[in-house]
Amino acid sequence: MLADNRIKAMCSAGAENDVSIGRMRIGKDAPLAVIAGPCAIENEQMLRETARLVIKSGAQMIRGGAFKPRSSPYSFQGLGLPGLKMLHRVGRELGVPVISEVMDSGDVEVMAEYVDVLQVGARNMQNFPLLRKLGTIDKPVLLKRGLAATIEEWLLAAEYIMVGGNEKVILCERGIRTHERWTRNTLDLSAVAVVKSRSCLPVIVDPSHATGHNHLVAPMAKAAVAAGADGLMIEVHPCPEKAMSDGQQALTPEQFREMMLEVSRIAAAVGRHAV
Amino acid sequence: MLADNRIKAMCSAGAENDVSIGRMRIGKDAPLAVIAGPCAIENEQMLRETARLVIKSGAQMIRGGAFKPRSSPYSFQGLGLPGLKMLHRVGRELGVPVISEVMDSGDVEVMAEYVDVLQVGARNMQNFPLLRKLGTIDKPVLLKRGLAATIEEWLLAAEYIMVGGNEKVILCERGIRTHERWTRNTLDLSAVAVVKSRSCLPVIVDPSHATGHNHLVAPMAKAAVAAGADGLMIEVHPCPEKAMSDGQQALTPEQFREMMLEVSRIAAAVGRHAV
Amino acid sequence: MLADNRIKAMCSAGAENDVSIGRMRIGKDAPLAVIAGPCAIENEQMLRETARLVIKSGAQMIRGGAFKPRSSPYSFQGLGLPGLKMLHRVGRELGVPVISEVMDSGDVEVMAEYVDVLQVGARNMQNFPLLRKLGTIDKPVLLKRGLAATIEEWLLAAEYIMVGGNEKVILCERGIRTHERWTRNTLDLSAVAVVKSRSCLPVIVDPSHATGHNHLVAPMAKAAVAAGADGLMIEVHPCPEKAMSDGQQALTPEQFREMMLEVSRIAAAVGRHAV
Amino acid sequence: MLADNRIKAMCSAGAENDVSIGRMRIGKDAPLAVIAGPCAIENEQMLRETARLVIKSGAQMIRGGAFKPRSSPYSFQGLGLPGLKMLHRVGRELGVPVISEVMDSGDVEVMAEYVDVLQVGARNMQNFPLLRKLGTIDKPVLLKRGLAATIEEWLLAAEYIMVGGNEKVILCERGIRTHERWTRNTLDLSAVAVVKSRSCLPVIVDPSHATGHNHLVAPMAKAAVAAGADGLMIEVHPCPEKAMSDGQQALTPEQFREMMLEVSRIAAAVGRHAV
Repeated sequence: MLADNRIKAMCSAGAENDVSIGRMRIGKDAPLAVIAGPCAIENEQMLRETARLVIKSGAQMIRGGAFKPRSSPYSFQGLGLPGLKMLHRVGRELGVPVISEVMDSGDVEVMAEYVDVLQVGARNMQNFPLLRKLGTIDKPVLLKRGLAATIEEWLLAAEYIMVGGNEKVILCERGIRTHERWTRNTLDLSAVAVVKSRSCLPVIVDPSHATGHNHLVAPMAKAAVAAGADGLMIEVHPCPEKAMSDGQQALTPEQFREMMLEVSRIAAAVGRHAV
Repeated sequence: MLADNRIKAMCSAGAENDVSIGRMRIGKDAPLAVIAGPCAIENEQMLRETARLVIKSGAQMIRGGAFKPRSSPYSFQGLGLPGLKMLHRVGRELGVPVISEVMDSGDVEVMAEYVDVLQVGARNMQNFPLLRKLGTIDKPVLLKRGLAATIEEWLLAAEYIMVGGNEKVILCERGIRTHERWTRNTLDLSAVAVVKSRSCLPVIVDPSHATGHNHLVAPMAKAAVAAGADGLMIEVHPCPEKAMSDGQQALTPEQFREMMLEVSRIAAAVGRHAV
Repeated sequence: MLADNRIKAMCSAGAENDVSIGRMRIGKDAPLAVIAGPCAIENEQMLRETARLVIKSGAQMIRGGAFKPRSSPYSFQGLGLPGLKMLHRVGRELGVPVISEVMDSGDVEVMAEYVDVLQVGARNMQNFPLLRKLGTIDKPVLLKRGLAATIEEWLLAAEYIMVGGNEKVILCERGIRTHERWTRNTLDLSAVAVVKSRSCLPVIVDPSHATGHNHLVAPMAKAAVAAGADGLMIEVHPCPEKAMSDGQQALTPEQFREMMLEVSRIAAAVGRHAV
Repeated sequence: MLADNRIKAMCSAGAENDVSIGRMRIGKDAPLAVIAGPCAIENEQMLRETARLVIKSGAQMIRGGAFKPRSSPYSFQGLGLPGLKMLHRVGRELGVPVISEVMDSGDVEVMAEYVDVLQVGARNMQNFPLLRKLGTIDKPVLLKRGLAATIEEWLLAAEYIMVGGNEKVILCERGIRTHERWTRNTLDLSAVAVVKSRSCLPVIVDPSHATGHNHLVAPMAKAAVAAGADGLMIEVHPCPEKAMSDGQQALTPEQFREMMLEVSRIAAAVGRHAV
C-alpha cells in the first residue's frame, strides 16, 4: 500500500526517527512527550501562568491557539499575530518549545519565526498547498487526523509534507466524527497501534478535542499511553468556565497535575519514561 | 440557530437571490443549471471537444480541474495554470462560463482572472482563510459540502464567505462519508431540502463524486432534481477508461446526452425549466 | 460477490419477480406501490379514518405498528395483538392489504394470520433466527435496511429469508445513521440504484423515518421515485402533534394527498404508473 | 437523562453492584475479569485445550460461540446445541464459568441451562423481545453495544433487561462502525469512561472483534484497562489460520499469555488486581 514512498524509505532505513525539538524528543525511544496549554491564547499573563504550572507538572511543550479555526465566523477567532508573539515570549522565558496552528500556506513563514512546531488542524489535513509549503521548511510539523480521514489518507497527507524534504512529521490522533453524541468526537486509539505498525512516525493523542469533556480526558490520556502513543496534547485553562474557546474540555492546572501522576504510572507500565 | 447572520439577512429581505453568471442564473427561479466537463483538464483538444458535446446536450457551464486535490502526492495533480488558461480559452470560444477549483487563498486572485466561478472542494470547506479571501472578490463561489460536515457547518462556511461581502454563494452537495462501501460517498439528498428550508441559497448536486460509479449518476441526477436541486455538476470524459483522474465515475458524452433527456422530464415534473 | 446464491439464481432466471399481494404488485413492472398509515396503531377509529383517507389519495396498502421497537422501555410499546386485530379488520373492511412489524421469531405465525406482509425493522435486519423463520412462511416480507448495514449485508439478510424458500422479499431503504444531526437518519437513495443493479428484488423507500421531519417527506418521496424506487412507505396521522410515536415525521391526510399529486408527476416522468 | 429508571435506582442505592458468577466477580471493585476462548466452538478437544491454556494464563471465564450470527447464510453457522453442551462440559471440568451468545428469545431457556452468562451480540442489542426475555431469568447477561448504537441507546437496552427484574447486566464495548477501513470496527474506549460516569454497571471490552487484527489486540486490551474497563473478552484459537470464523483476529494461546503479562502491568498501574 505504502510502497515506494517517503515513509517506507525513511522507516526501512532503520535510522533514528524520533523528532527532535531543541532538547526535547518525540518518538518510540523518547520519554512520553506532553504538550499542554490553553485552547486559545487570551492574554499573556494567563498564558504565562498556565505554562508555568503545566511545566511544573511535567509538560515539555506549550500549546496555544493564535489563529483559531472556528465553525462560525461569529465565534472568537483568536488574537492572531500578537497572540503568537506572546506564545513565543513565554516559551523563550520558560525555556520550552511552543506549538501553534497554521491554517494557510501564506502564514507558514511568519509562523515558523515564532513557534517551534507548526500544527496542522483536523480541518486542514488535506489542505495540500499548506502541506506542500510545510514540506519546504526546517521545523517539525504536527499533523492532526481529519474528522473523516482514514488512516491511509492521514499517512498520505504526511507524505505531502515529506515529499518536499521535511521528514519531521508528528501525527496526532484527535478523534473522528461518528454517530455518537455523548462525546464530541470518537477517539480512535486503534489508529495509534495501526500507525505504529505501518510507519515509524511519532504519534501523539489529543484527548481534549476528542472527548470534549474534561472528566473524560484523564481516562483517555491513560488509555492513549497504554496503546503506545508517544505523547499527549492536553488543553489546560486556569479557569475553564471562563475560557473563550472550548472551556468544557479544558483541565484546570490542578486536574492536569493529577492526570500527570496517573499517566506516569501507565507510562512506566509500558516501559516508557515520563519526564 | 442561524439568527443574526448574513444568510438570514439576505433571505428575509426577500430579494432576488439567484446567482447570475453572465446570462446564466442559478437558483430557485432559474432554469436547471447544468455544469459538465472532465474531472481534470488533460489537454486543450479533449477539453474543447468535451465542452462542445456537453453544451450541445444542454450544459450551460464547463467544469475542469487544473489544480487537483488528490489524496496521494504521487497521483496526477492537474496541469495547473496552463490548464486554467485552456479552460478560459475554451469557455470564451464557446461562449459559456467556466468553473474550476481553488485550493489556496494565495491562488484566489489568479484564479479569478481565468474562471467565472471559483469552486471550493469538500476538503477545503473549512479552510477559513480561503473562505475569507473568497469573501473579498466579486465572483460567485461554489461551496462543496465537506465529507464529515453537518449541514449547519456548511451554512456557517457560507457565512465565512458572505461576511466579507460576497453573497454569491452556491452550495453543492457531493456526498458525505459513511460506512457504506459500494458507493464512493453517500449522497445526502435530504440536505438539499434542508438547505432550502433554512436558507435561500442556490444548491446543486454532484452525483459523480458522490456515487463514484457512472451507472449511478443518472438515477441520482434525476433524484436530485426531484428533491429540489437547482442544478447538477456532472463529470464527462470522452474516454472514461483512459481518464487521468476518477474515470470510473465519468459519463461519456453520449451517456450525458441520454441523462439530460431523462433529467429534463423530471425538471418539467417539478415545474422547473431545463434549458 | 453474490454468486451462487438465491438472488442471483432468481434474478438470472429472468422470471417475473414482482411481488404480488392479492391484486397489488410491487416491482419494476408494477405501478408505484404506496403504503401509508400511522406509525403506531392507537385505536381502531383513528386507524380506519386514516386508512380511508390515504386510500382515497392513492395508497394501496395500510401500515400500522402493533409491536413497536422503541429505544426506551418506558416509551409507548404499541397495542400488541389487539392492535394487530384492528389492522386486520380495517384492511378487510376496506379491501386492501395490511403490513405490520414482527420483532421475534416466536411471533411470526400469529403475525402471519393477521397481516398480508410482515415487516422486519431496521434494528432486526440481522436477527437471523427471525429471518430464517420468515423464510418458511408463504407471505411477503418487507426487509428494512439496518442503520449501520452495508448494502451487501442487506442483500445477504434477504438471502437468509430466501434460502428457506420464501423468495417474496421486498427491500426498504429507510436511512442510515451518520454524523448529520438535522435529519433523523441519512436517506441513502443511491442504495436504490445499487440494489437495482445488483438484484431484481423490489425496493421501496421510507422517507418518514429517514428524515424525521414532515416537511422533508414530500421532497424525499419524489426523489426516491426519480431514483427508481418501486414504492413508498409513508407515515400519516390525522393529528400528528398528538401521535403516541414519531409525530413530528407524520403527514396529515391532507399533506399526504398533496404529496401523492406531486409524486404521481415524477412517476409519470420516469415511465411508471401511479395507481 | 436517565432519571427514574432502573440504572439510576440501582446505582444511587450505592449497593454492591459487581456482578457475581460463582466465585468470579465483575465490576469496579473486582479484579480484572478476563474471558477468553475461540470465536466459534469447532470441536470439544480444541475447546478443552484452548480453555486449559487460557485459564493457565489467567482467564477466568471461557467463551465459545455455538450459534453464530454470520452476515451470510452460507458461512459456518456454529455447531448449535451440541457445541453448547461441549462448552458446558469443558467449563464444569475445568471449574470455570462459560459464556455463549443467544440470538433468539426462544432459545433463552435452553441456553440458560448450559451457560453461566448469556451474551447478546451487537446485532441484537435492540432485539427487544430477546432483552425482555433475558429480564426474566436469574443469570447474568453480557450486552454488547450495537454497531450504530449511541451510548444512550445502549444503556436503554440495559434498561429493557433490568425492567424485568434481572439487574445482572454487564456491558461490553466491541467497536462501532465508522468510515475507517484498516480496522474492522472503531473501538470506542471513551464509551467505557462515559458509561462509568453515567452508571454503575460493569463494562468490559472486546478488542478482538473491534479491531479485527490480532496484532492490534494487545495494545487495545492494555488501553481498555487503562481507560477503566472492568474486564476483557479475547478470542483465542490454537491455530488461527485454520479457524472456521474470524481467524485473523484470534490470538494464539502463546500470544494470549504474553498479552496477559502486559495487561497485568497496566491493571496494577490503575490499582486493579489482575487475577
